[in-house]
Amino acid sequence: MRALHWDGHELSVRTSYPPPSSRPKIEEGESKIVGATGSRAAANENQGAIVKVHLAGICSTDLQIFKGYMNFKGVPGHEFVGSVSDGPSDLIGKRVVSEINFGCGKCDSCRRDLSRHCPNRSIMGILDADGAFAEYVSAPVANLHVVPGHVSDEEAVFTEPLAAAFEILTQIELSPDEEVLVLGDGKLGNLCAQVLRLTGAKVTALGKHPEKLKLIKNSAVRTVLLNDWRPRLFDVVVEATGSSSGLALALSAVRPRGTLVLKSTIAGNHQVSLAPIVINEISVIGSRCGPFPDALDALFTKRVVVTPLIEKIYSLDDGLAAVSHAGKPGARKILLRPS
Amino acid sequence: MRALHWDGHELSVRTSYPPPSSRPKIEEGESKIVGATGSRAAANENQGAIVKVHLAGICSTDLQIFKGYMNFKGVPGHEFVGSVSDGPSDLIGKRVVSEINFGCGKCDSCRRDLSRHCPNRSIMGILDADGAFAEYVSAPVANLHVVPGHVSDEEAVFTEPLAAAFEILTQIELSPDEEVLVLGDGKLGNLCAQVLRLTGAKVTALGKHPEKLKLIKNSAVRTVLLNDWRPRLFDVVVEATGSSSGLALALSAVRPRGTLVLKSTIAGNHQVSLAPIVINEISVIGSRCGPFPDALDALFTKRVVVTPLIEKIYSLDDGLAAVSHAGKPGARKILLRPS
Repeated sequence: MRALHWDGHELSVRTSYPPPSSRPKIEEGESKIVGATGSRAAANENQGAIVKVHLAGICSTDLQIFKGYMNFKGVPGHEFVGSVSDGPSDLIGKRVVSEINFGCGKCDSCRRDLSRHCPNRSIMGILDADGAFAEYVSAPVANLHVVPGHVSDEEAVFTEPLAAAFEILTQIELSPDEEVLVLGDGKLGNLCAQVLRLTGAKVTALGKHPEKLKLIKNSAVRTVLLNDWRPRLFDVVVEATGSSSGLALALSAVRPRGTLVLKSTIAGNHQVSLAPIVINEISVIGSRCGPFPDALDALFTKRVVVTPLIEKIYSLDDGLAAVSHAGKPGARKILLRPS
Repeated sequence: MRALHWDGHELSVRTSYPPPSSRPKIEEGESKIVGATGSRAAANENQGAIVKVHLAGICSTDLQIFKGYMNFKGVPGHEFVGSVSDGPSDLIGKRVVSEINFGCGKCDSCRRDLSRHCPNRSIMGILDADGAFAEYVSAPVANLHVVPGHVSDEEAVFTEPLAAAFEILTQIELSPDEEVLVLGDGKLGNLCAQVLRLTGAKVTALGKHPEKLKLIKNSAVRTVLLNDWRPRLFDVVVEATGSSSGLALALSAVRPRGTLVLKSTIAGNHQVSLAPIVINEISVIGSRCGPFPDALDALFTKRVVVTPLIEKIYSLDDGLAAVSHAGKPGARKILLRPS
């Protein structure tokens, strides 16, 4: 099959990459694969499925991978929507999205319904498992979620990053009288701002790009350009800049005893004074992958709008140009259409 | 009066330093001084008191101040016990300790009973207020707590750092089946380990100094030398090393979705990868000053033992030697006796 391949040094389009088997490689002997849905795994969820990829999104984690993050080698890509081509009969032909962490099913984390944090997990397109920048991708059945009919492929491809935004609501409580600052006007910042707004909290989005902030503005979020920023304090600050420089600004904008949610995964070291965390008794909450059902429901009910975030759709054959485009400052979401 | 004075460059013993007035300088016009007890402030708590210092403790924050932390100039010292020499008649002669943050009494933080985080506050011996390395120190009456009779001066002088250890219990919940790692075998690490042990949680203390770890061992805490450390994961890790290098080790020892309590205030920048916070969805909780009543109660009931932590008591005249001693690696608590 055709696939975009990263060998650790170079990205290339391969035309005869071996297609995935329906048994993801982490499944060995009697081990049971349990996905992020953990305890809900039924018997047929032990097996894998092959999904024909309709659309895949290039995420900043992918761009970090091409800088060496996670030392990943293989087919990247972990945001996608497709249709099941091989697997349990009741799923064949169904449109699906997939959670990206493949837990071992045996460890403490998996047993506690936290297979997302399984120490032995592989991660689609990030760690020990090929991803979705290809014609086909495999995933444990337990990781799959069927996409509701009214949700288009162009919407469903945002399920993974949107779920990551919803993760914040599983970690902190927000009330309508609270003031929230979202730092970063990129894709993740946009989704976080929209999701946090659903709680009724007063959300301000701070960014560098007027045209990107405008995309957020459509969702009743107050937007401010960094150049116009007058520092003030917020109950909750979400750091979603994707840049190591965002942390110091974020720390300076949290009220004493407030909460700072860290969303950006940065390869390499931060250089920052963490004394404000202690002095102001700030709670810093790391936040990563989140609940797919919440994301799919928000897309189904149109409570979150994602398609304005699409910049361009490339064919897989133009994958190198797509990645280059995705890395340009100010680029919105670049999608790949493998077939 | 005699006082130890830091002019921003040099520490010296002054023999004719102006004694404090009973009105701390933050009180202006009609403003009302409210201490850490906030809403409980009664009428006579608007005024200040003069306290004759019996014993004062040299803390690592003081040593940081002598390296430029907070740009403080004046009389340092914020851990002390003394007796009221001027103030409300019902307090005269009483032995007291004092909370160190002097709030403005007017801002949001003060109104929310968080004067410890008042943005306009002064802090005894740290910010805009002379401290306790002197014969006399002044504090708002609302900040004072009377020391129970059975608690000796040598115990009561630990109230402030012990309260800082109790602060952790106001921020996180601990259950007996949880595993806690305290990083650092210094004074603060020792107090944190003892206090956390009170919850029934399984507490391990990790440090570099066998003789210091032994002091902790007396309190049913498991102790491990850094050289013998076999990395494993804990539900809660408390970083109390006082060193910027402790953070990376702390991050590596927290389980996914676990809690890291930051106690060390470090002047200058950390250089560390914060990606583990996001990837493992760790909650990092900054923790500073805490509840004096809890600390005094623990001293009164002997649930926490502090006097083995005392290394030596110096007279104020030997203040320079005392500070030098306190800065030596491995030194336990150095106390000053001004009179």
